[in-house]
Amino acid sequence: MSSSVKSENLFQKKSCVVVCGASRGLGECISITFAKKFLTGSVFILLSRDGKALENVKTSLQSECPDQLCITKVFDQGIMQQENFECLFDGIVQSNNISLADLEQVVMVHCAGTLGDITKYCKEMTDPKKVRENFDINVVGTILLNSAFLKAFKDVGSKVIINISSLAGIQPFKSWSLYCSGKAARDMFFRTLALEDPDILVLNYAPGPCATDMQKDCREQSADPETKQMFIDALNSGGLLSPQTSIDKLCEVLTSKFESGAHIDFYDEIKQ
Amino acid sequence: MSSSVKSENLFQKKSCVVVCGASRGLGECISITFAKKFLTGSVFILLSRDGKALENVKTSLQSECPDQLCITKVFDQGIMQQENFECLFDGIVQSNNISLADLEQVVMVHCAGTLGDITKYCKEMTDPKKVRENFDINVVGTILLNSAFLKAFKDVGSKVIINISSLAGIQPFKSWSLYCSGKAARDMFFRTLALEDPDILVLNYAPGPCATDMQKDCREQSADPETKQMFIDALNSGGLLSPQTSIDKLCEVLTSKFESGAHIDFYDEIKQ
Repeated sequence: MSSSVKSENLFQKKSCVVVCGASRGLGECISITFAKKFLTGSVFILLSRDGKALENVKTSLQSECPDQLCITKVFDQGIMQQENFECLFDGIVQSNNISLADLEQVVMVHCAGTLGDITKYCKEMTDPKKVRENFDINVVGTILLNSAFLKAFKDVGSKVIINISSLAGIQPFKSWSLYCSGKAARDMFFRTLALEDPDILVLNYAPGPCATDMQKDCREQSADPETKQMFIDALNSGGLLSPQTSIDKLCEVLTSKFESGAHIDFYDEIKQ
Repeated sequence: MSSSVKSENLFQKKSCVVVCGASRGLGECISITFAKKFLTGSVFILLSRDGKALENVKTSLQSECPDQLCITKVFDQGIMQQENFECLFDGIVQSNNISLADLEQVVMVHCAGTLGDITKYCKEMTDPKKVRENFDINVVGTILLNSAFLKAFKDVGSKVIINISSLAGIQPFKSWSLYCSGKAARDMFFRTLALEDPDILVLNYAPGPCATDMQKDCREQSADPETKQMFIDALNSGGLLSPQTSIDKLCEVLTSKFESGAHIDFYDEIKQ
Protein backbone atom coordinates (compact mmCIF):
# COMPACT_ATOMS: atom_id res chain seq x y z
CA MET A 1 0.00 0.00 0.00
CA SER A 2 3.05 2.29 -0.19
CA SER A 3 2.22 5.34 -2.25
CA SER A 4 5.69 6.66 -3.00
CA VAL A 5 5.18 6.76 -6.77
CA LYS A 6 2.07 8.87 -6.63
CA SER A 7 3.30 11.28 -4.02
CA GLU A 8 6.55 12.16 -5.80
CA ASN A 9 4.79 14.41 -8.28
CA LEU A 10 2.09 15.64 -5.98
CA PHE A 11 2.91 19.34 -6.18
CA GLN A 12 3.59 19.24 -9.92
CA LYS A 13 0.04 18.40 -10.89
CA LYS A 14 -2.65 20.84 -11.89
CA SER A 15 -4.84 20.50 -8.84
CA CYS A 16 -7.97 21.60 -7.11
CA VAL A 17 -7.11 21.94 -3.43
CA VAL A 18 -9.89 22.23 -0.84
CA VAL A 19 -8.99 23.40 2.65
CA CYS A 20 -11.69 23.25 5.31
CA GLY A 21 -10.87 25.42 8.31
CA ALA A 22 -8.82 27.76 6.13
CA SER A 23 -9.43 31.06 7.89
CA ARG A 24 -6.72 30.88 10.54
CA GLY A 25 -3.93 28.93 12.17
CA LEU A 26 -2.76 25.84 10.38
CA GLY A 27 -5.50 25.98 7.74
CA GLU A 28 -4.45 29.47 6.72
CA CYS A 29 -0.79 28.44 6.58
CA ILE A 30 -1.61 25.33 4.54
CA SER A 31 -3.65 27.37 2.05
CA ILE A 32 -0.90 29.87 1.36
CA THR A 33 1.98 27.39 1.47
CA PHE A 34 0.19 25.00 -0.88
CA ALA A 35 -0.71 27.86 -3.24
CA LYS A 36 3.01 28.60 -3.53
CA LYS A 37 4.01 24.98 -4.05
CA PHE A 38 1.34 23.66 -6.41
CA LEU A 39 1.58 24.02 -10.16
CA THR A 40 0.31 27.43 -11.27
CA GLY A 41 -3.18 27.35 -12.72
CA SER A 42 -4.38 25.30 -9.77
CA VAL A 43 -7.64 26.06 -7.96
CA PHE A 44 -7.90 26.68 -4.22
CA ILE A 45 -11.27 26.34 -2.51
CA LEU A 46 -11.08 27.72 1.02
CA LEU A 47 -13.86 26.87 3.45
CA SER A 48 -14.54 28.28 6.91
CA ARG A 49 -17.33 29.45 9.15
CA ASP A 50 -15.62 32.85 9.39
CA GLY A 51 -16.23 34.65 6.09
CA LYS A 52 -14.38 37.82 7.03
CA ALA A 53 -11.20 36.04 8.08
CA LEU A 54 -11.46 33.89 4.96
CA GLU A 55 -11.42 36.99 2.73
CA ASN A 56 -8.21 38.12 4.41
CA VAL A 57 -6.60 34.76 3.66
CA LYS A 58 -7.77 35.03 0.06
CA THR A 59 -6.22 38.51 -0.25
CA SER A 60 -2.88 37.21 1.05
CA LEU A 61 -3.00 34.15 -1.18
CA GLN A 62 -3.83 36.12 -4.31
CA SER A 63 -1.19 38.71 -3.60
CA GLU A 64 1.51 36.05 -3.17
CA CYS A 65 0.23 33.70 -5.87
CA PRO A 66 -1.65 35.70 -8.50
CA ASP A 67 -1.62 32.76 -10.93
CA GLN A 68 -3.66 30.49 -8.69
CA LEU A 69 -7.44 30.71 -8.65
CA CYS A 70 -8.75 31.23 -5.11
CA ILE A 71 -12.40 30.68 -4.23
CA THR A 72 -13.84 31.16 -0.76
CA LYS A 73 -17.05 29.79 0.64
CA VAL A 74 -18.57 30.20 4.07
CA PHE A 75 -19.23 26.68 5.28
CA ASP A 76 -19.91 25.05 8.65
CA GLN A 77 -19.36 21.29 8.81
CA GLY A 78 -21.19 21.21 12.14
CA ILE A 79 -24.54 21.81 10.41
CA MET A 80 -25.98 18.32 10.08
CA GLN A 81 -28.18 18.80 7.03
CA GLN A 82 -27.71 16.82 3.87
CA GLU A 83 -27.99 19.84 1.57
CA ASN A 84 -25.19 21.55 3.52
CA PHE A 85 -22.85 18.91 2.14
CA GLU A 86 -24.31 17.53 -1.07
CA CYS A 87 -24.72 20.83 -2.92
CA LEU A 88 -21.47 22.39 -1.74
CA PHE A 89 -18.96 21.44 -4.42
CA ASP A 90 -21.26 21.27 -7.42
CA GLY A 91 -22.34 24.84 -6.63
CA ILE A 92 -18.74 26.03 -6.38
CA VAL A 93 -17.64 24.21 -9.55
CA GLN A 94 -20.55 25.56 -11.59
CA SER A 95 -20.50 29.14 -10.42
CA ASN A 96 -16.74 29.41 -10.97
CA ASN A 97 -16.68 27.54 -14.29
CA ILE A 98 -14.11 25.06 -13.00
CA SER A 99 -13.38 22.49 -15.69
CA LEU A 100 -13.04 19.15 -13.96
CA ALA A 101 -11.56 17.63 -17.11
CA ASP A 102 -8.58 20.01 -16.85
CA LEU A 103 -7.67 18.81 -13.36
CA GLU A 104 -5.01 16.17 -12.85
CA GLN A 105 -5.52 15.93 -9.10
CA VAL A 106 -7.81 16.91 -6.26
CA VAL A 107 -6.63 17.45 -2.70
CA MET A 108 -8.82 17.73 0.41
CA VAL A 109 -7.35 19.07 3.63
CA HIS A 110 -9.49 18.47 6.73
CA CYS A 111 -8.31 21.18 9.09
CA ALA A 112 -11.60 22.24 10.70
CA GLY A 113 -12.23 21.18 14.24
CA THR A 114 -13.00 22.27 17.76
CA LEU A 115 -11.18 21.54 21.00
CA GLY A 116 -14.55 20.79 22.53
CA ASP A 117 -15.01 21.37 26.23
CA ILE A 118 -11.54 20.95 27.75
CA THR A 119 -12.70 22.56 30.99
CA LYS A 120 -14.16 19.24 32.11
CA TYR A 121 -12.98 15.78 33.03
CA CYS A 122 -14.52 12.59 31.63
CA LYS A 123 -16.79 12.14 34.64
CA GLU A 124 -18.22 15.65 34.13
CA MET A 125 -19.41 14.98 30.57
CA THR A 126 -23.11 15.23 31.30
CA ASP A 127 -24.36 17.69 28.68
CA PRO A 128 -25.67 15.81 25.61
CA LYS A 129 -25.61 18.99 23.52
CA LYS A 130 -21.93 19.70 24.15
CA VAL A 131 -20.73 16.13 23.81
CA ARG A 132 -22.69 15.63 20.62
CA GLU A 133 -21.54 18.95 19.16
CA ASN A 134 -17.94 17.83 19.56
CA PHE A 135 -18.51 14.69 17.52
CA ASP A 136 -20.73 16.53 15.02
CA ILE A 137 -18.03 19.07 14.19
CA ASN A 138 -14.90 16.95 14.55
CA VAL A 139 -16.08 13.62 13.20
CA VAL A 140 -19.53 13.46 11.57
CA GLY A 141 -19.03 16.71 9.63
CA THR A 142 -15.57 15.63 8.49
CA ILE A 143 -16.94 12.32 7.21
CA LEU A 144 -19.83 13.98 5.37
CA LEU A 145 -17.61 16.65 3.82
CA ASN A 146 -15.18 13.97 2.73
CA SER A 147 -17.93 11.99 1.00
CA ALA A 148 -19.23 15.13 -0.70
CA PHE A 149 -15.71 15.89 -1.93
CA LEU A 150 -15.11 12.36 -3.27
CA LYS A 151 -18.50 12.36 -5.00
CA ALA A 152 -18.09 15.78 -6.62
CA PHE A 153 -14.57 15.03 -7.90
CA LYS A 154 -15.00 11.31 -8.58
CA ASP A 155 -13.85 11.62 -12.20
CA VAL A 156 -10.55 13.32 -11.38
CA GLY A 157 -7.78 10.74 -11.62
CA SER A 158 -5.57 11.46 -8.65
CA LYS A 159 -6.93 12.08 -5.16
CA VAL A 160 -5.18 13.11 -1.96
CA ILE A 161 -6.80 13.43 1.46
CA ILE A 162 -4.94 15.10 4.32
CA ASN A 163 -6.48 14.82 7.77
CA ILE A 164 -5.01 17.25 10.28
CA SER A 165 -4.72 14.89 13.19
CA SER A 166 -2.98 15.34 16.54
CA LEU A 167 -0.83 13.53 19.05
CA ALA A 168 -4.12 13.57 20.99
CA GLY A 169 -5.49 11.12 18.43
CA ILE A 170 -3.13 8.41 19.64
CA GLN A 171 -2.37 9.50 23.20
CA PRO A 172 -4.82 10.54 25.92
CA PHE A 173 -4.46 13.85 27.77
CA LYS A 174 -6.27 14.63 31.01
CA SER A 175 -9.38 16.83 30.53
CA TRP A 176 -9.13 16.40 26.76
CA SER A 177 -11.35 13.35 26.40
CA LEU A 178 -13.64 14.73 23.71
CA TYR A 179 -10.85 16.13 21.57
CA CYS A 180 -8.75 12.97 21.94
CA SER A 181 -11.60 10.61 21.12
CA GLY A 182 -12.75 12.72 18.17
CA LYS A 183 -9.22 12.73 16.72
CA ALA A 184 -8.93 8.97 17.29
CA ALA A 185 -12.22 8.46 15.43
CA ARG A 186 -11.05 10.63 12.51
CA ASP A 187 -7.74 8.81 12.22
CA MET A 188 -9.54 5.46 12.14
CA PHE A 189 -12.05 6.68 9.55
CA PHE A 190 -9.24 7.77 7.24
CA ARG A 191 -7.29 4.55 7.86
CA THR A 192 -10.41 2.71 6.69
CA LEU A 193 -10.69 4.93 3.61
CA ALA A 194 -7.04 4.22 2.75
CA LEU A 195 -7.71 0.51 3.02
CA GLU A 196 -10.88 0.69 0.92
CA ASP A 197 -9.45 2.90 -1.84
CA PRO A 198 -5.78 2.23 -2.55
CA ASP A 199 -5.98 4.81 -5.35
CA ILE A 200 -6.54 7.61 -2.86
CA LEU A 201 -3.46 8.86 -1.03
CA VAL A 202 -4.45 9.41 2.61
CA LEU A 203 -2.36 11.02 5.33
CA ASN A 204 -3.18 11.58 9.00
CA TYR A 205 -0.72 14.35 9.89
CA ALA A 206 -0.14 15.36 13.52
CA PRO A 207 1.32 18.88 13.25
CA GLY A 208 3.03 19.08 16.63
CA PRO A 209 2.47 21.92 19.13
CA CYS A 210 2.03 25.01 16.95
CA ALA A 211 1.76 28.64 18.00
CA THR A 212 -1.91 29.09 17.08
CA ASP A 213 -5.05 30.41 18.77
CA MET A 214 -5.90 26.83 19.63
CA GLN A 215 -2.71 26.52 21.68
CA LYS A 216 -3.72 29.63 23.59
CA ASP A 217 -7.04 27.95 24.41
CA CYS A 218 -5.13 24.86 25.59
CA ARG A 219 -3.03 26.94 27.97
CA GLU A 220 -5.97 28.93 29.28
CA GLN A 221 -8.86 26.45 29.39
CA SER A 222 -7.51 22.96 30.17
CA ALA A 223 -9.16 21.81 33.40
CA ASP A 224 -6.28 19.56 34.33
CA PRO A 225 -3.38 21.50 35.93
CA GLU A 226 -0.79 19.06 34.55
CA THR A 227 -2.09 19.35 30.98
CA LYS A 228 -2.34 23.12 31.34
CA GLN A 229 1.23 23.38 32.64
CA MET A 230 2.50 21.27 29.74
CA PHE A 231 1.21 23.90 27.31
CA ILE A 232 2.45 26.82 29.40
CA ASP A 233 5.89 25.18 29.56
CA ALA A 234 5.88 24.61 25.81
CA LEU A 235 5.31 28.32 25.28
CA ASN A 236 7.82 29.50 27.87
CA SER A 237 10.57 27.14 26.79
CA GLY A 238 10.24 28.19 23.16
CA GLY A 239 9.00 24.69 22.34
CA LEU A 240 6.10 25.83 20.16
CA LEU A 241 6.48 25.44 16.42
CA SER A 242 5.52 28.14 13.98
CA PRO A 243 2.68 26.94 11.73
CA GLN A 244 5.07 27.43 8.79
CA THR A 245 7.65 25.04 10.26
CA SER A 246 4.99 22.38 10.74
CA ILE A 247 3.46 22.84 7.30
CA ASP A 248 6.88 22.76 5.62
CA LYS A 249 7.33 19.38 7.25
CA LEU A 250 3.88 18.32 6.01
CA CYS A 251 5.04 19.17 2.47
CA GLU A 252 8.16 17.04 2.99
CA VAL A 253 6.03 14.15 4.27
CA LEU A 254 3.74 14.41 1.25
CA THR A 255 6.63 13.89 -1.14
CA SER A 256 8.20 11.12 0.94
CA LYS A 257 7.47 7.44 1.10
CA PHE A 258 4.63 6.67 3.47
CA GLU A 259 1.88 4.12 3.67
CA SER A 260 -1.50 5.56 2.72
CA GLY A 261 -3.59 6.00 5.89
CA ALA A 262 -0.56 6.34 8.18
CA HIS A 263 -0.50 8.65 11.19
CA ILE A 264 2.66 10.71 10.84
CA ASP A 265 3.78 13.24 13.42
CA PHE A 266 5.86 16.37 12.93
CA TYR A 267 8.55 14.76 15.06
CA ASP A 268 8.62 11.50 13.08
CA GLU A 269 11.57 10.77 10.87
CA ILE A 270 10.82 11.07 7.15
CA LYS A 271 11.58 8.11 4.90
CA GLN A 272 12.79 9.13 1.48
CA MET B 1 -0.85 2.72 36.83
CA SER B 2 -0.90 -1.05 37.23
CA SER B 3 -4.02 -2.10 39.06
CA SER B 4 -3.15 -5.61 40.09
CA VAL B 5 -3.86 -5.07 43.77
CA LYS B 6 -7.39 -3.82 43.26
CA SER B 7 -8.38 -6.34 40.66
CA GLU B 8 -7.37 -9.41 42.70
CA ASN B 9 -10.46 -9.17 44.87
CA LEU B 10 -12.80 -7.82 42.24
CA PHE B 11 -15.32 -10.66 42.32
CA GLN B 12 -15.21 -10.97 46.12
CA LYS B 13 -16.69 -7.56 46.77
CA LYS B 14 -20.34 -6.77 47.38
CA SER B 15 -21.05 -4.97 44.16
CA CYS B 16 -23.57 -3.17 42.08
CA VAL B 17 -23.00 -4.25 38.48
CA VAL B 18 -24.60 -2.29 35.63
CA VAL B 19 -24.68 -3.88 32.18
CA CYS B 20 -25.88 -1.74 29.28
CA GLY B 21 -26.86 -3.84 26.27
CA ALA B 22 -27.78 -6.77 28.53
CA SER B 23 -30.62 -8.30 26.55
CA ARG B 24 -28.65 -10.51 24.18
CA GLY B 25 -25.28 -11.68 22.94
CA LEU B 26 -22.26 -10.72 24.99
CA GLY B 27 -24.24 -8.47 27.33
CA GLU B 28 -26.54 -11.34 28.28
CA CYS B 29 -23.58 -13.65 28.83
CA ILE B 30 -21.75 -11.06 30.92
CA SER B 31 -24.83 -10.49 33.10
CA ILE B 32 -25.29 -14.15 33.93
CA THR B 33 -21.60 -15.02 34.22
CA PHE B 34 -20.94 -12.05 36.51
CA ALA B 35 -24.02 -12.90 38.61
CA LYS B 36 -22.48 -16.33 39.24
CA LYS B 37 -19.01 -14.96 40.04
CA PHE B 38 -19.74 -11.91 42.18
CA LEU B 39 -20.26 -12.15 45.93
CA THR B 40 -23.88 -13.05 46.73
CA GLY B 41 -25.98 -10.12 47.82
CA SER B 42 -24.72 -8.09 44.88
CA VAL B 43 -27.08 -6.02 42.74
CA PHE B 44 -27.37 -6.35 38.95
CA ILE B 45 -28.89 -3.51 36.95
CA LEU B 46 -29.55 -4.66 33.39
CA LEU B 47 -30.23 -2.03 30.74
CA SER B 48 -31.43 -2.50 27.18
CA ARG B 49 -33.82 -1.04 24.61
CA ASP B 50 -35.53 -4.42 24.38
CA GLY B 51 -37.67 -4.84 27.50
CA LYS B 52 -39.03 -8.24 26.60
CA ALA B 53 -35.63 -9.82 25.95
CA LEU B 54 -34.36 -8.17 29.12
CA GLU B 55 -37.05 -9.92 31.20
CA ASN B 56 -35.93 -13.28 29.77
CA VAL B 57 -32.34 -12.56 30.84
CA LYS B 58 -33.60 -11.59 34.30
CA THR B 59 -35.51 -14.87 34.58
CA SER B 60 -32.39 -16.86 33.67
CA LEU B 61 -30.22 -14.84 36.02
CA GLN B 62 -32.60 -15.19 38.97
CA SER B 63 -33.09 -18.89 38.39
CA GLU B 64 -29.32 -19.51 38.36
CA CYS B 65 -28.44 -16.97 41.02
CA PRO B 66 -31.41 -16.49 43.37
CA ASP B 67 -29.25 -14.67 45.93
CA GLN B 68 -28.39 -11.80 43.62
CA LEU B 69 -30.77 -8.88 43.20
CA CYS B 70 -31.63 -8.31 39.56
CA ILE B 71 -33.21 -5.08 38.34
CA THR B 72 -34.11 -4.38 34.72
CA LYS B 73 -34.73 -1.04 33.09
CA VAL B 74 -35.63 -0.23 29.52
CA PHE B 75 -33.05 2.34 28.42
CA ASP B 76 -31.79 3.66 25.09
CA GLN B 77 -28.43 5.42 25.18
CA GLY B 78 -29.12 6.78 21.70
CA ILE B 79 -31.72 9.21 23.06
CA MET B 80 -29.79 12.44 23.42
CA GLN B 81 -31.77 14.09 26.21
CA GLN B 82 -30.19 15.03 29.49
CA GLU B 83 -33.01 13.58 31.60
CA ASN B 84 -32.56 10.22 29.85
CA PHE B 85 -29.19 9.96 31.58
CA GLU B 86 -29.24 12.12 34.70
CA CYS B 87 -32.32 10.60 36.34
CA LEU B 88 -31.57 6.99 35.40
CA PHE B 89 -29.59 5.66 38.35
CA ASP B 90 -31.09 7.77 41.13
CA GLY B 91 -34.51 6.50 40.05
CA ILE B 92 -33.37 2.86 40.10
CA VAL B 93 -31.56 3.21 43.43
CA GLN B 94 -34.55 4.86 45.12
CA SER B 95 -37.32 2.64 43.77
CA ASN B 96 -35.39 -0.51 44.68
CA ASN B 97 -34.17 0.72 48.07
CA ILE B 98 -30.53 0.03 47.18
CA SER B 99 -28.29 1.07 50.05
CA LEU B 100 -25.24 2.69 48.53
CA ALA B 101 -23.46 2.54 51.88
CA ASP B 102 -23.59 -1.28 51.79
CA LEU B 103 -21.76 -1.46 48.45
CA GLU B 104 -18.03 -2.08 48.34
CA GLN B 105 -17.77 -1.72 44.58
CA VAL B 106 -19.63 -0.58 41.48
CA VAL B 107 -19.03 -2.02 38.02
CA MET B 108 -20.22 -0.56 34.72
CA VAL B 109 -20.14 -2.71 31.58
CA HIS B 110 -20.60 -0.78 28.33
CA CYS B 111 -21.86 -3.43 25.97
CA ALA B 112 -24.50 -1.48 24.00
CA GLY B 113 -23.67 -0.55 20.45
CA THR B 114 -24.63 -0.71 16.83
CA LEU B 115 -22.68 -1.91 13.82
CA GLY B 116 -23.91 1.18 12.01
CA ASP B 117 -24.29 1.02 8.26
CA ILE B 118 -21.78 -1.61 7.10
CA THR B 119 -23.45 -1.79 3.69
CA LYS B 120 -21.51 1.30 2.60
CA TYR B 121 -17.94 2.34 1.97
CA CYS B 122 -16.40 5.52 3.38
CA LYS B 123 -17.09 7.47 0.20
CA GLU B 124 -20.79 6.59 0.39
CA MET B 125 -21.27 8.11 3.84
CA THR B 126 -23.58 10.93 2.75
CA ASP B 127 -26.53 10.60 5.12
CA PRO B 128 -26.08 12.90 8.14
CA LYS B 129 -28.81 11.10 10.07
CA LYS B 130 -27.18 7.67 9.75
CA VAL B 131 -23.62 8.84 10.38
CA ARG B 132 -24.68 10.86 13.39
CA GLU B 133 -26.82 8.05 14.78
CA ASN B 134 -23.77 5.78 14.78
CA PHE B 135 -21.77 8.21 16.92
CA ASP B 136 -24.79 9.04 19.11
CA ILE B 137 -25.34 5.41 20.06
CA ASN B 138 -21.77 4.11 20.11
CA VAL B 139 -19.90 7.09 21.49
CA VAL B 140 -21.94 10.04 22.80
CA GLY B 141 -24.47 7.81 24.61
CA THR B 142 -21.69 5.72 26.13
CA ILE B 143 -19.94 8.85 27.43
CA LEU B 144 -23.15 10.28 28.91
CA LEU B 145 -24.16 6.99 30.52
CA ASN B 146 -20.68 6.66 31.98
CA SER B 147 -20.86 10.13 33.54
CA ALA B 148 -24.32 9.41 34.94
CA PHE B 149 -22.99 6.18 36.47
CA LEU B 150 -19.93 7.84 38.04
CA LYS B 151 -22.07 10.66 39.42
CA ALA B 152 -24.75 8.39 40.90
CA PHE B 153 -22.22 6.06 42.54
CA LYS B 154 -19.52 8.64 43.37
CA ASP B 155 -19.45 7.70 47.06
CA VAL B 156 -18.83 3.99 46.51
CA GLY B 157 -15.15 3.27 47.12
CA SER B 158 -14.16 0.94 44.35
CA LYS B 159 -15.11 1.51 40.71
CA VAL B 160 -14.61 -0.67 37.65
CA ILE B 161 -15.47 0.29 34.06
CA ILE B 162 -15.47 -2.33 31.32
CA ASN B 163 -15.81 -1.10 27.75
CA ILE B 164 -16.66 -3.83 25.28
CA SER B 165 -14.30 -2.82 22.53
CA SER B 166 -13.33 -4.65 19.35
CA LEU B 167 -10.37 -5.46 17.14
CA ALA B 168 -12.13 -2.92 14.90
CA GLY B 169 -11.20 -0.24 17.44
CA ILE B 170 -7.52 -0.58 16.61
CA GLN B 171 -7.62 -2.02 13.08
CA PRO B 172 -9.63 -0.81 10.08
CA PHE B 173 -11.93 -3.13 8.14
CA LYS B 174 -13.28 -2.29 4.69
CA SER B 175 -16.93 -1.07 4.76
CA TRP B 176 -16.79 -0.82 8.55
CA SER B 177 -15.66 2.79 8.83
CA LEU B 178 -18.37 3.96 11.24
CA TYR B 179 -18.07 0.98 13.55
CA CYS B 180 -14.26 1.13 13.54
CA SER B 181 -14.11 4.87 14.19
CA GLY B 182 -16.76 4.68 16.92
CA LYS B 183 -14.85 1.91 18.70
CA ALA B 184 -11.59 3.86 18.34
CA ALA B 185 -13.27 6.90 19.90
CA ARG B 186 -14.62 4.83 22.81
CA ASP B 187 -11.25 3.24 23.51
CA MET B 188 -9.62 6.67 23.58
CA PHE B 189 -12.31 8.10 25.85
CA PHE B 190 -11.77 5.32 28.37
CA ARG B 191 -7.98 5.61 28.09
CA THR B 192 -8.43 9.27 29.04
CA LEU B 193 -10.68 8.33 31.97
CA ALA B 194 -8.07 5.85 33.22
CA LEU B 195 -5.43 8.57 33.07
CA GLU B 196 -7.63 11.12 34.84
CA ASP B 197 -8.86 8.80 37.61
CA PRO B 198 -6.23 6.27 38.71
CA ASP B 199 -8.70 5.05 41.35
CA ILE B 200 -11.05 3.72 38.68
CA LEU B 201 -10.07 0.41 37.11
CA VAL B 202 -10.75 0.70 33.36
CA LEU B 203 -10.57 -2.06 30.78
CA ASN B 204 -11.15 -1.92 27.01
CA TYR B 205 -11.86 -5.56 26.23
CA ALA B 206 -11.97 -6.83 22.62
CA PRO B 207 -13.98 -10.05 22.86
CA GLY B 208 -12.81 -11.72 19.65
CA PRO B 209 -15.19 -13.07 16.98
CA CYS B 210 -18.16 -14.42 18.95
CA ALA B 211 -21.16 -16.39 17.70
CA THR B 212 -23.74 -13.65 18.26
CA ASP B 213 -26.48 -11.98 16.21
CA MET B 214 -24.00 -9.22 15.45
CA GLN B 215 -21.69 -11.71 13.73
CA LYS B 216 -24.62 -12.81 11.59
CA ASP B 217 -25.11 -9.20 10.52
CA CYS B 218 -21.39 -8.98 9.69
CA ARG B 219 -21.62 -12.01 7.42
CA GLU B 220 -24.80 -10.86 5.73
CA GLN B 221 -24.48 -7.09 5.47
CA SER B 222 -20.81 -6.16 5.00
CA ALA B 223 -20.53 -4.32 1.68
CA ASP B 224 -16.95 -5.37 1.14
CA PRO B 225 -16.66 -8.91 -0.25
CA GLU B 226 -13.31 -9.48 1.49
CA THR B 227 -14.65 -8.44 4.90
CA LYS B 228 -17.80 -10.48 4.33
CA GLN B 229 -15.79 -13.57 3.37
CA MET B 230 -13.63 -13.21 6.47
CA PHE B 231 -16.74 -13.60 8.63
CA ILE B 232 -18.16 -16.43 6.53
CA ASP B 233 -14.82 -18.24 6.78
CA ALA B 234 -14.73 -17.71 10.54
CA LEU B 235 -18.11 -19.41 10.82
CA ASN B 236 -17.34 -22.26 8.43
CA SER B 237 -13.94 -23.03 9.89
CA GLY B 238 -15.34 -23.19 13.41
CA GLY B 239 -13.30 -20.10 14.28
CA LEU B 240 -16.13 -18.34 16.12
CA LEU B 241 -15.96 -18.23 19.88
CA SER B 242 -18.94 -18.92 22.07
CA PRO B 243 -19.84 -15.83 24.10
CA GLN B 244 -19.14 -17.89 27.23
CA THR B 245 -15.55 -18.65 26.14
CA SER B 246 -14.92 -14.95 25.53
CA ILE B 247 -16.50 -13.82 28.79
CA ASP B 248 -14.61 -16.45 30.78
CA LYS B 249 -11.46 -14.89 29.38
CA LEU B 250 -12.75 -11.43 30.33
CA CYS B 251 -13.10 -12.69 33.92
CA GLU B 252 -9.52 -13.97 33.82
CA VAL B 253 -8.30 -10.63 32.48
CA LEU B 254 -10.14 -8.78 35.25
CA THR B 255 -8.27 -10.70 37.93
CA SER B 256 -4.91 -10.44 36.16
CA LYS B 257 -2.34 -7.69 36.12
CA PHE B 258 -3.16 -5.05 33.52
CA GLU B 259 -2.69 -1.34 33.18
CA SER B 260 -5.91 0.58 33.72
CA GLY B 261 -7.17 1.85 30.35
CA ALA B 262 -5.47 -0.90 28.35
CA HIS B 263 -7.01 -2.46 25.24
CA ILE B 264 -6.86 -6.21 25.81
CA ASP B 265 -7.99 -8.71 23.21
CA PHE B 266 -9.35 -12.22 23.74
CA TYR B 267 -6.26 -13.53 21.97
CA ASP B 268 -3.78 -11.58 24.11
CA GLU B 269 -1.69 -13.42 26.65
CA ILE B 270 -2.74 -12.83 30.25
CA LYS B 271 -0.15 -11.57 32.72
CA GLN B 272 -0.61 -12.98 36.22
